[in-house]
Amino acid sequence: MSNDVKKRLDNPPYLQLAIDIPDLPTVQELLSSLSETSSQRLLLEIGTPLIKNEGLKNAVPVFRHYFPKSYLIADLKTLDVGKLEVSLGAKTGVDACVVSGLAPLPTIKGFIEECQKLALDTWIDTLGTNLETFKPKLLLLDSLPDVIIVHRGIDEEIAGKESVYESISEIKSNLEKLVAIAGGLNLKNVHLAKDHGADIFIIGRAIYQSKNPQKSLDQFLSIIL
Amino acid sequence: MSNDVKKRLDNPPYLQLAIDIPDLPTVQELLSSLSETSSQRLLLEIGTPLIKNEGLKNAVPVFRHYFPKSYLIADLKTLDVGKLEVSLGAKTGVDACVVSGLAPLPTIKGFIEECQKLALDTWIDTLGTNLETFKPKLLLLDSLPDVIIVHRGIDEEIAGKESVYESISEIKSNLEKLVAIAGGLNLKNVHLAKDHGADIFIIGRAIYQSKNPQKSLDQFLSIIL
Repeated sequence: MSNDVKKRLDNPPYLQLAIDIPDLPTVQELLSSLSETSSQRLLLEIGTPLIKNEGLKNAVPVFRHYFPKSYLIADLKTLDVGKLEVSLGAKTGVDACVVSGLAPLPTIKGFIEECQKLALDTWIDTLGTNLETFKPKLLLLDSLPDVIIVHRGIDEEIAGKESVYESISEIKSNLEKLVAIAGGLNLKNVHLAKDHGADIFIIGRAIYQSKNPQKSLDQFLSIIL
Repeated sequence: MSNDVKKRLDNPPYLQLAIDIPDLPTVQELLSSLSETSSQRLLLEIGTPLIKNEGLKNAVPVFRHYFPKSYLIADLKTLDVGKLEVSLGAKTGVDACVVSGLAPLPTIKGFIEECQKLALDTWIDTLGTNLETFKPKLLLLDSLPDVIIVHRGIDEEIAGKESVYESISEIKSNLEKLVAIAGGLNLKNVHLAKDHGADIFIIGRAIYQSKNPQKSLDQFLSIIL
């Protein structure tokens, strides 16, 4: 992919559909049912369990088939061999790869450098970090990631960890980067994330586990736009 | 898999071949060339980049084909949805799954519970953690992982982070668990890990990138046994 055709996230807000369904036939059915959604505000995430179960090589082409022009994010949650993992994502034609904010600094550096070399966006996931240690770590990087994901994990969410909306405005006031929010967003609370200034709203089960995913997706879009 | 047939790591030391090659045909060639290695001291790891590129569903059966009776470890480096990721590994018939020591506590708990339920061993990878914060975190768990991996990442290794041999004896003196060591082991330094009491020696590129992987594997086995 050359820089000329690189998709840019220059018109937030966006709704990101995160697909953590591990089984590709089920994913295929879902994508097929949503493929008439032409909104340029819709980003699609190949979720970690899907990547681990089916492999990037097999999962990404299915996303590309149903959404040929959409911005695709590979949620690799990379912890080691940053350069290698980015190269695997790039080969499949995704637009962005996600590194874990918990990864050692050399991994994050290698990850960002390889993304830049291959004209991919770098996303960093704050899952499991705390802002006090994460922010100084970010400042050790020569260049910052393009998107910072404020994220409460599904397991943390179930265990009752409090929400993270406050972190959005804190990060935005310090760093001129896009901020995405993930973890437990639903039709009732998504406005809180909007009020705190999120640029990208990452939503998974609240859309694909609903009775009518297309309708839920449209409802979320109408709230965040 | 029932408890009756569960493979047990009750006779250390072991040599673990970690295959981080992302491409399945290359892995297949390697496994085929090594498949006459009948040592019960050999464990096989499906490495993270291989899992992410090809998928557990596709990679594990290839390992099982060439090593029908061997102990197989899925290096998932799980950071979220612990229960789900273990179930994906279990479906493919691996003997153990690896959770990241950086994962939030609820994720590690869910991961261990699911491993126990499905009669898999739990391994935890200390990559990116420091012992001072990691040990108290372990003690918050109802039950400990079966194996603790002392690990310097490949990216950290290249960046010159010092070795971690000292951590082996420190962990062993505190917890009665098996300790595996990973990261930069080669024929010149593996005796240091042995001297510090490692139970499992995780070696990747020093075997599969050597001119004669079978010969290298045999050399490592003869040193650690």
